Amino acid sequence: MFERRLFREEHEMFRASVRKFIEKEIAPYHQQWEKDGIVPRELWLKAGAAGMLCCTIPEEYGGLGLDYLFDVIVFEEMARSGFTAPGFMIHCDLVATYIKSFGSEEQKKYWLPKMVSGEAIGSLGMTEPHAGSDLKNIKTRATRNGDSYIIDGQKVFISNGQLCDVIVLATKTDSSQGAAGITLFLVDTSLPGFVRGKKLDKLGLKGQDTSELFFENLRVPASAMLGTEGQGFALMMTKLAQERLAQAIRSAVVAETAIDWTVEYTHNRKAFGGTIADFQNTQFKLAELKTEAVIGRVFTDACIEKFMRGELSEIDAAMAKMWLSNLHCKVVDECLQLFGGWGYMWEYPIARAYADARIVKIAGGSIEVMKHIIGRSLYR
Amino acid sequence: MFERRLFREEHEMFRASVRKFIEKEIAPYHQQWEKDGIVPRELWLKAGAAGMLCCTIPEEYGGLGLDYLFDVIVFEEMARSGFTAPGFMIHCDLVATYIKSFGSEEQKKYWLPKMVSGEAIGSLGMTEPHAGSDLKNIKTRATRNGDSYIIDGQKVFISNGQLCDVIVLATKTDSSQGAAGITLFLVDTSLPGFVRGKKLDKLGLKGQDTSELFFENLRVPASAMLGTEGQGFALMMTKLAQERLAQAIRSAVVAETAIDWTVEYTHNRKAFGGTIADFQNTQFKLAELKTEAVIGRVFTDACIEKFMRGELSEIDAAMAKMWLSNLHCKVVDECLQLFGGWGYMWEYPIARAYADARIVKIAGGSIEVMKHIIGRSLYR
Amino acid sequence: MFERRLFREEHEMFRASVRKFIEKEIAPYHQQWEKDGIVPRELWLKAGAAGMLCCTIPEEYGGLGLDYLFDVIVFEEMARSGFTAPGFMIHCDLVATYIKSFGSEEQKKYWLPKMVSGEAIGSLGMTEPHAGSDLKNIKTRATRNGDSYIIDGQKVFISNGQLCDVIVLATKTDSSQGAAGITLFLVDTSLPGFVRGKKLDKLGLKGQDTSELFFENLRVPASAMLGTEGQGFALMMTKLAQERLAQAIRSAVVAETAIDWTVEYTHNRKAFGGTIADFQNTQFKLAELKTEAVIGRVFTDACIEKFMRGELSEIDAAMAKMWLSNLHCKVVDECLQLFGGWGYMWEYPIARAYADARIVKIAGGSIEVMKHIIGRSLYR
Amino acid sequence: MFERRLFREEHEMFRASVRKFIEKEIAPYHQQWEKDGIVPRELWLKAGAAGMLCCTIPEEYGGLGLDYLFDVIVFEEMARSGFTAPGFMIHCDLVATYIKSFGSEEQKKYWLPKMVSGEAIGSLGMTEPHAGSDLKNIKTRATRNGDSYIIDGQKVFISNGQLCDVIVLATKTDSSQGAAGITLFLVDTSLPGFVRGKKLDKLGLKGQDTSELFFENLRVPASAMLGTEGQGFALMMTKLAQERLAQAIRSAVVAETAIDWTVEYTHNRKAFGGTIADFQNTQFKLAELKTEAVIGRVFTDACIEKFMRGELSEIDAAMAKMWLSNLHCKVVDECLQLFGGWGYMWEYPIARAYADARIVKIAGGSIEVMKHIIGRSLYR
Ligand SMILES: Cc1cc2nc3c(=O)[nH]c(=O)nc-3n(C[C@H](O)[C@H](O)[C@H](O)COP(=O)(O)OP(=O)(O)OC[C@H]3O[C@@H](n4cnc5c(N)ncnc54)[C@H](O)[C@@H]3O)c2cc1C
Ligand SMILES: Cc1cc2nc3c(=O)[nH]c(=O)nc-3n(C[C@H](O)[C@H](O)[C@H](O)COP(=O)(O)OP(=O)(O)OC[C@H]3O[C@@H](n4cnc5c(N)ncnc54)[C@H](O)[C@@H]3O)c2cc1C
Ligand SMILES: Cc1cc2nc3c(=O)[nH]c(=O)nc-3n(C[C@H](O)[C@H](O)[C@H](O)COP(=O)(O)OP(=O)(O)OC[C@H]3O[C@@H](n4cnc5c(N)ncnc54)[C@H](O)[C@@H]3O)c2cc1C
Ligand SMILES: Cc1cc2nc3c(=O)[nH]c(=O)nc-3n(C[C@H](O)[C@H](O)[C@H](O)COP(=O)(O)OP(=O)(O)OC[C@H]3O[C@@H](n4cnc5c(N)ncnc54)[C@H](O)[C@@H]3O)c2cc1C
Repeated sequence: MFERRLFREEHEMFRASVRKFIEKEIAPYHQQWEKDGIVPRELWLKAGAAGMLCCTIPEEYGGLGLDYLFDVIVFEEMARSGFTAPGFMIHCDLVATYIKSFGSEEQKKYWLPKMVSGEAIGSLGMTEPHAGSDLKNIKTRATRNGDSYIIDGQKVFISNGQLCDVIVLATKTDSSQGAAGITLFLVDTSLPGFVRGKKLDKLGLKGQDTSELFFENLRVPASAMLGTEGQGFALMMTKLAQERLAQAIRSAVVAETAIDWTVEYTHNRKAFGGTIADFQNTQFKLAELKTEAVIGRVFTDACIEKFMRGELSEIDAAMAKMWLSNLHCKVVDECLQLFGGWGYMWEYPIARAYADARIVKIAGGSIEVMKHIIGRSLYR
Repeated sequence: MFERRLFREEHEMFRASVRKFIEKEIAPYHQQWEKDGIVPRELWLKAGAAGMLCCTIPEEYGGLGLDYLFDVIVFEEMARSGFTAPGFMIHCDLVATYIKSFGSEEQKKYWLPKMVSGEAIGSLGMTEPHAGSDLKNIKTRATRNGDSYIIDGQKVFISNGQLCDVIVLATKTDSSQGAAGITLFLVDTSLPGFVRGKKLDKLGLKGQDTSELFFENLRVPASAMLGTEGQGFALMMTKLAQERLAQAIRSAVVAETAIDWTVEYTHNRKAFGGTIADFQNTQFKLAELKTEAVIGRVFTDACIEKFMRGELSEIDAAMAKMWLSNLHCKVVDECLQLFGGWGYMWEYPIARAYADARIVKIAGGSIEVMKHIIGRSLYR
Repeated sequence: MFERRLFREEHEMFRASVRKFIEKEIAPYHQQWEKDGIVPRELWLKAGAAGMLCCTIPEEYGGLGLDYLFDVIVFEEMARSGFTAPGFMIHCDLVATYIKSFGSEEQKKYWLPKMVSGEAIGSLGMTEPHAGSDLKNIKTRATRNGDSYIIDGQKVFISNGQLCDVIVLATKTDSSQGAAGITLFLVDTSLPGFVRGKKLDKLGLKGQDTSELFFENLRVPASAMLGTEGQGFALMMTKLAQERLAQAIRSAVVAETAIDWTVEYTHNRKAFGGTIADFQNTQFKLAELKTEAVIGRVFTDACIEKFMRGELSEIDAAMAKMWLSNLHCKVVDECLQLFGGWGYMWEYPIARAYADARIVKIAGGSIEVMKHIIGRSLYR
Repeated sequence: MFERRLFREEHEMFRASVRKFIEKEIAPYHQQWEKDGIVPRELWLKAGAAGMLCCTIPEEYGGLGLDYLFDVIVFEEMARSGFTAPGFMIHCDLVATYIKSFGSEEQKKYWLPKMVSGEAIGSLGMTEPHAGSDLKNIKTRATRNGDSYIIDGQKVFISNGQLCDVIVLATKTDSSQGAAGITLFLVDTSLPGFVRGKKLDKLGLKGQDTSELFFENLRVPASAMLGTEGQGFALMMTKLAQERLAQAIRSAVVAETAIDWTVEYTHNRKAFGGTIADFQNTQFKLAELKTEAVIGRVFTDACIEKFMRGELSEIDAAMAKMWLSNLHCKVVDECLQLFGGWGYMWEYPIARAYADARIVKIAGGSIEVMKHIIGRSLYR
């Protein structure tokens, strides 16, 4: 097998502590959170206290200033656990990163410490009912009004939508333009005019409060702008690689984990005088999946290294996101099959993993959008 | 397109009435039933009154003595509706058929009229926690005791498990034997010793009361036996083709329907200055799926005809079940993708269809068992 | 298994005679023809004498006026034999059919009897080096000159190119137009200005004289026109369904035959104390392929029937061509694998079938063009 | 893109010289060699003189004692060229490596200098007509006779079979045993009793002299044994990883190269008022393939590094061989398709690449054998 070479001892100690946290603070409650469709705020505070949120935020903004691998470990261990309710990844990898990279000193000072501690929960508000892949066609308007902007519009599918205290919000400041008319704001959800819509009932990710959000005459100070006017699209583009890498990281782990579950299950499940593992079909299927999981692992780790060297391109990330997402879905599908009827029972992690998996080929840049990006690049 | 040639005018009239029934009696309530994990008994009575249950049962047993195509129409229209909560198929196609084919006059007289009217709901009890595909290894015992048999054991994954009034139950009367030791009983669930276990929480089929069942010292008269002692396995084998055909019939329709939904959705969904239907990828994917749906339709109808001529072999049925189940899952998966984020929302039929679909490659003879049957037959 | 229901006794007698012909007149020489890259003209005369060419041509034009199933039988038995050198299909199904359908009385009287007897061999000249799928962009010009047309240009990939006596040739009579500028001519290859280019060396179909053809100031009488000026594209479109059906018919048979070879081989090939047939992987693979071959068979026969009723649409035919071509290629690929090293040896029919197969996804309308046709039709 | 990090400047200089060699000494003649089914001996001498044979052999045995990457470069550049006639890989990576690793001082002194110079060409003789995957069931006997062994038997599919001067030959010294009865000999083909059988006509690899070999009462001195009696199987096992890695290395390059060809072709091929590259289908297909080629590249390079650290396990190598072989075949198939009719013409490299590719899923350990190895390992 291919030993991973990324992590040092301090990372592995952190990993152990994250695992313990998950076991103690998440595992016992996850089933309930799925019913609730949301996690309690205390979980966030506990995770903050455990140092699991936004590991890379510098000490001056309340963080620990650790390297990216600490974030990776949180994403990996969450993925390994199969518990998808807490929306840590969007909070840490996206919202905090946007603020860290593009925020004013004031914005960073205000929000980052709270995000590290879990007091403030972050959301990313891009998608609208009629515009997902085609982000430049959003309609939410931000209209200059003296020293403020008035925001009107609607978002949908927003992760952490019920919990969020701060949103990186994509708006149109110039509706006559496409991408060039987009501006980002850092919206404080305690402001009047912010209205949480309904929590969406989904195929999987049952514990996540994916929501509709409404902005009705919401007034934000101009200082809430992230970057400059019209710069929003460009800013988002610079963070795509990171977001997509994070998804690939999770998918790589889910694939590995689902295979482990299935090896164990088929090894123990008796049938026809032997076990399910004795069938050549079982062994061949798992051999194929395992091979791809190993290859996916080697590639993902190469991407992580490249990202940390600042060299991961948009195209690299699109390849990682596309291939690992596809693998993720394929693995959970083929593994579920080997569980027979039990694979269809919600109490089995493989059933939940199957329902959770289906989103990864869609959100954060669909498979088709990835192909578009990669395909186009071949002819340059 | 290939016009279907199976149905005559009376069939199409019946189809129209079934559609109306679904619209009026099922559509408005289905969401609630999904939450309840079960449908109300009245639905069954209404369906009975509408002539939708067990259409082929002869008039002498309370039925209408219609041809098999009437049953087909019920399965097809239920499949087209996307409403999976009512477990009509198992009741009609399996339980009533077992009784009609193998029951004593007394058994037929007693149960069939009630099943036609919906007063008695049927279940098929074969699978046990440790034995599904490997049916001959079940452990539920039926021990002769004077004029009765005492039944002890446990079943799992039993459709209509909370509602059922009568079960075709597979037991071992001779545990020293495999297949040859299996005997079927027609168990009245009002008897003492019948204990309904928990309703199982599933990936999909949320409105179906798939359950555990327990048999504790349950005494049935010898006259409750279906067929003769040791004949159970052989009897079940004779009905496999019919069960598998029914699954293929449903899958063929789900595939067609999901494609229709997706053509419509992509036609209307705007993006990038056009619609999702304008992308060659969309058209090519749907062209592939449509082609397979058409081919699957022609084949399914050929199987129905063959079945009605009494010529559908176990192998034919295994081919139909396998191929159409695979198609079913593939189509809903690829179609869901084309819905983007909306495809992941439970309110969209495609999301539910996706969750519901995953069982068809497992229950009623898994894909692997089908391949086993077909593969073996090639070398005879 | 699904018994075919198309053929009557007279068809089966004809089939037997075709098989005998192949065994006696083709099998012993095919290897040599592969080396030569061409078949001898005598073969055509013998095939004509055996009644195998253009079975549907009416008696008044020298034919037997049989139904389409006789042509089908020739295509099927050639496909079953694995001998691809003789280009009968293009001759019968395309060239003769064009003449029969669109030819003037004079043209029919002149060419059809010779084509039935094998004295005149037909080719279809559409593709040019720079234009295949995009047929309306051909450049070969036909310029009116008094009572004649002067043809200049070049064709490529023309089956029967070295042997042909008559060509249905697509030309541009109006180069300012696309499809509307295309006109067909029936070109007698003994005319001055007709120049046979090189025989093309191919991946497979080694015995077929696929060639370049040149037309240099070639003068044909206006009476050589097939249909009217500018009607060429429309005429070709009306025959596409037939051509594509013929390809599907052949592919269905190749798939069946390759599976038969492989069942037999794996049954006899010893390894690891048993045979290759004992491996579950072998049985499962063949079960999948066999299932698709059976389904493809049922569908192909339904298409033949529909075609004979005059109802096979362009879309139906595109579905058949696409799906059966894909199946054809998949089956020979997976079967070859099961032959191990022997599958790679030219002396094994499966190796030749593999090389021959690859063209079916390209010629006569590529898979992509089929998807284009089908996909577009979904949104009408 | 992922820059490769394996090679240093000296490697790249060597690579340039190998490319020049191929261009000058192979490219102009390859077509002729395909017709001949063999390459001339002078090519080997020239390659030897160019330092391209057996780069890792120590100076004491006439070599240059370079690192493994020099061999890799030869395999890669040959693969990139698309010229498959010269059987360098088996000679260098297998035969010379066997001798270097297991040979006596005398054997090394005798054979290695000649192999480095190209005077002696090596073959590996394992497979027999009835035993390929199931190697332990070979029948070629080596019977002790005083100080010699008498060898009788037959091999098949032996690369370099017409040219070889020395064979690493697998024999049975104890036919009552399986693997434990196998002994290797280093057979000098100038000895009496060595008979070259027919050169096999193949689907691809047309320039390779894959042959049958016969051993009739061939007497070799006991000192020709490689390793000890009964050790043969174990010795072969230790080299499997290297052989399989070499295949993966070639496949990775072929995949990359075929994609490059296709990007270029589709970019230039005009159709429908644009180019084939303008179709989304083209871009999406190539995006998928490119992604896999990149991932395969990263993984292959990781395997090379691991191999050079002495850590590449049998399972790692099986994964690499399986996955890259599959990719190789898939890529050439999908790329050929995008060439349309030209892809089927032998003059196009993609057509030859397609024919050549098909063997990689069979020889040197079939896909199925790889799955067997990997699958089994999961349950240990
Ligand atoms: C559970 C969940 C959580 C989410 N969380 C967030 C969040 O926190 N914040 C946020 O802003 N958004 C979020 N999203 C939204 C998500 O990013 C979008 O759903 C996604 O970008 C796709 O957009 P869409 O749904 O509008 O699909 P569409 O853009 O309408 O796409 C429909 C289909 O068309 C395809 N398509 C699009 N473009 C092309 C093309 N050029 N060529 C071919 N095919 C194409 C798509 O791949 C898809 O198959 C979330 C979504 C889900 C379901
Ligand atoms: C929603 C639902 C409803 C159901 N309804 C009913 C019902 O009403 N009545 C009833 O009696 N049962 C019912 N079942 C049970 C169902 O029929 C079984 O789940 C099914 O037969 C598979 O059995 P299993 O779950 O024990 O899987 P197992 O038999 O344990 O199979 C595990 C895996 O091994 C594979 N496998 C098995 N044999 C082989 C082989 N020879 N070669 C290779 N692979 C093999 C299987 O395909 C599967 O992938 C239901 C199940 C579900 C989930
Ligand atoms: C052995 C052989 C025999 C033949 N016999 C004859 C014959 O007898 N007479 C004759 O006239 N022709 C003949 N042909 C030609 C054959 O019909 C053409 O090769 C075929 O139509 C494809 O055209 P092309 O080669 O120009 O490919 P192109 O049209 O250049 O296509 C290149 C690629 O682009 C794809 N493509 C094309 N359009 C689209 C689209 N809209 N969207 C996405 N992808 C697209 C194609 O599918 C293909 O993959 C023969 C060809 C061969 C190889
Ligand atoms: C061009 C070429 C060059 C070659 N060069 C050499 C050479 O230089 N020296 C040499 O010694 N050999 C050589 N070979 C032989 C090659 O290694 C064998 O062909 C290969 O090992 C497969 O063996 P086989 O052909 O006997 O197939 P078989 O072993 O008969 O296999 C038949 C089929 O059964 C499958 N199968 C086998 N075992 C299992 C299993 N356990 N489970 C499921 N399926 C299984 C195989 O994968 C294959 O699909 C060459 C072959 C070719 C074609």
